[in-house]
Amino acid sequence: MKTPTALMTDLYQLTMAAGYFHHGLHAKRVSFELFVRRLPENRRFMLFAGLERVLDYLRNLHFTESQIAYLRQVPHLQTAMSYDFVEFLRDFRFTGDVWAMPEGTVCFAREPMIRVTGTLLETQLVETFLLSAINTETIVATKAARIILAADGRDVLEFGTRRTSPDEAVASARAAFIAGFAATSNVEAGYRWDIPVAGTAAHSWTMSHASEEDAFRNYVEVFPKHATLLVDTYDTIEGVKRAIAVAHDRLKGIRLDSGDLLALSTQARRLLDEAGLRDTKIVASGDLNEDKIQRLVAAGAPIDGFGVGTELVRSSDNPTLGGVYKIVFDHTEDRPVAKFSEGKATLPGLHQVFRKYRDGIAESDVIGTAPEFHIDSTPLVEEWMKDGRLVRPLPSLAKIRSRARTQLAEMPVAVRGLGPPNPAEAYDVRLSHGLQTLIDEVRKREMT
Amino acid sequence: MKTPTALMTDLYQLTMAAGYFHHGLHAKRVSFELFVRRLPENRRFMLFAGLERVLDYLRNLHFTESQIAYLRQVPHLQTAMSYDFVEFLRDFRFTGDVWAMPEGTVCFAREPMIRVTGTLLETQLVETFLLSAINTETIVATKAARIILAADGRDVLEFGTRRTSPDEAVASARAAFIAGFAATSNVEAGYRWDIPVAGTAAHSWTMSHASEEDAFRNYVEVFPKHATLLVDTYDTIEGVKRAIAVAHDRLKGIRLDSGDLLALSTQARRLLDEAGLRDTKIVASGDLNEDKIQRLVAAGAPIDGFGVGTELVRSSDNPTLGGVYKIVFDHTEDRPVAKFSEGKATLPGLHQVFRKYRDGIAESDVIGTAPEFHIDSTPLVEEWMKDGRLVRPLPSLAKIRSRARTQLAEMPVAVRGLGPPNPAEAYDVRLSHGLQTLIDEVRKREMT
Repeated sequence: MKTPTALMTDLYQLTMAAGYFHHGLHAKRVSFELFVRRLPENRRFMLFAGLERVLDYLRNLHFTESQIAYLRQVPHLQTAMSYDFVEFLRDFRFTGDVWAMPEGTVCFAREPMIRVTGTLLETQLVETFLLSAINTETIVATKAARIILAADGRDVLEFGTRRTSPDEAVASARAAFIAGFAATSNVEAGYRWDIPVAGTAAHSWTMSHASEEDAFRNYVEVFPKHATLLVDTYDTIEGVKRAIAVAHDRLKGIRLDSGDLLALSTQARRLLDEAGLRDTKIVASGDLNEDKIQRLVAAGAPIDGFGVGTELVRSSDNPTLGGVYKIVFDHTEDRPVAKFSEGKATLPGLHQVFRKYRDGIAESDVIGTAPEFHIDSTPLVEEWMKDGRLVRPLPSLAKIRSRARTQLAEMPVAVRGLGPPNPAEAYDVRLSHGLQTLIDEVRKREMT
Repeated sequence: MKTPTALMTDLYQLTMAAGYFHHGLHAKRVSFELFVRRLPENRRFMLFAGLERVLDYLRNLHFTESQIAYLRQVPHLQTAMSYDFVEFLRDFRFTGDVWAMPEGTVCFAREPMIRVTGTLLETQLVETFLLSAINTETIVATKAARIILAADGRDVLEFGTRRTSPDEAVASARAAFIAGFAATSNVEAGYRWDIPVAGTAAHSWTMSHASEEDAFRNYVEVFPKHATLLVDTYDTIEGVKRAIAVAHDRLKGIRLDSGDLLALSTQARRLLDEAGLRDTKIVASGDLNEDKIQRLVAAGAPIDGFGVGTELVRSSDNPTLGGVYKIVFDHTEDRPVAKFSEGKATLPGLHQVFRKYRDGIAESDVIGTAPEFHIDSTPLVEEWMKDGRLVRPLPSLAKIRSRARTQLAEMPVAVRGLGPPNPAEAYDVRLSHGLQTLIDEVRKREMT
């Protein structure tokens, strides 16, 4: 049972809907595109995520009688809730077309992540939900991709649920998995999408026993095949020794959650190896982010897996994505639309992104008009919905994840790096000759 | 229909539950308390929010057959999913007691926001959801309270939906309303809790018309009583003049969404006054936060209302609250429990917070043991659930909001200020003599 989502929007989408309806403008056919004007601060790319939720929303969008009754008594809307408009809302379904990049696509500023074509009313109404879903899932997937790049092949586990809201936690676990995380602690995400779930015990498990030794023994007894023991409740190195003594060859792993992770992991590895436990893994967690992980990896810390929470779901170096959703074409009047104001300029027309490769590495993106064809390049924006219906099955999460891996691997070294982006090394995104010509035409038309 | 939430948790809560069950430790009676160790950076207080969602979760917590079937095949859990444990999960309900501060309470570090008493299994299992709900709602309510203090009596409108996830947006609108926001753009929040909703039109309304004048005229026709016109699509001052010319005395307000808000609002006010529209309001929005609002208010900008979005829901100066949930008492062994490790110390025992006032202004909080009585002080932690049932009706949102207003008004000037907190002026939170004695006893016991 899905929560009805039609009211998960800003009121002004409904006032505008009522206004368009009243003036007979609602059926005008237009296209909107969703993009960011600039890359988020401290980011060299974005990893697109959230489309599945958007398509799910669009397919299920409708107003219940109870929602309509509510809208009829909102003071602001009262004058606009005519009999005809109420009837219209009762029958309302999204009937538009959707083109978008597949989830797991690496993308850049000004590139259309989603394009929605339909009536002015329906394309406008869905703006808020689309921005909400894409802004939040893409910012997490992007952060997750940076963490994956930092971990350089080591496993990363998603532990963020307690630092984000209950529902967003589930979406964040999915976004992290797309980017390459190995597993999540969020059980709902495992239940919903079959994402591998991970987690063993908290410090409170140890503290609820008379001694650390009792706690370890009791754990191994219940989970003989999955005994990863949290060793830092009291003294970490003593904890490692105790874990070895109690679990022997059933010790699948140990987790370090505090202290100098380089020094502790090095000592722990030596103790494990001396005990013949070469296959026992070391997992580290505790306020980790991509920079700390990169330093640990560079220093050769013998850590097999990293757990990341807070910094993934509420990235302190960049908590928001500034996605916008702007009208680009008026089909009724067959007219490309753009804004040219400084810092808020938009690109007129329907767009496609053509990615060019050299020796398997992405070299540049060309933003062109949708009908263009560029030889030796891959178009990134694909058709998903036509007249409100899916035109093909949604890709599996495994397929999305695999796309993300490929996309990240194909990026040049400068894009895959973590430090503050250097404009001189920024990925090359240019406008096609056709689009540039169109911009000049529209600008000329606007000035006259 | 509520989404089942039992799996909205970290896997380790379930592995520990299975482990406690296996070893017969699950029925041991304990208390956990939820608190923050330090105030969030750049914050002088917190405004507590999220309790309603927590109580709702606890009352409805149960495992569906489908969820149990899923858990039975999670590799990690398999060895622990005995027949008895599965039967236990089938019948599982939360049967514990809950004490907590009412939502809308101003609180500080180390003070218990929530205390949960019950079996070790149930109190541990609920940790993740409680932290998730309280961390996210309290951080937004706290930011919202700072914005309200900055606005100094002017209206503030919540516009954050597009910058946070769909579900969290609804909770954030509620948290902001508690803190004193006048309205939200989030229609679902209005529908669910009867929070006033606000919003008029976006720039796209204006751009969808042949001219700004047409756009204004069409808007006023549909919303004659609520004509707040967005005037900055092209030239702001021209927009103000046009709004006056088109709407005359039906112009309820204008909204400025860009540019120098002080200069523009001053010019707009003069134009409105010259046209005799002294009651027409000026609303300002566009990347506002408490500091910008405070500067505008201090400069005497004639702005009647502020719209705040991104900075409310994803505060860039502090995106996370680090709430923790720690065991404080083992009732089965009648033993207060604490950790004394540096930076991670906890307070042993059950706690109450006693707020002392002088001339109507809060002077200090004393954290004491729960049974203490402090003359001339108000205890902040109240009983909400007993044996899994509510002991009294939940307060209305209006009542919670009114409590927040009183609580903020009662705070000393130094707490209500916005700049980086000065430790010398920090609000006085001390431990009672009784609690200090208990700490010493427990510490002595731990050392022997």
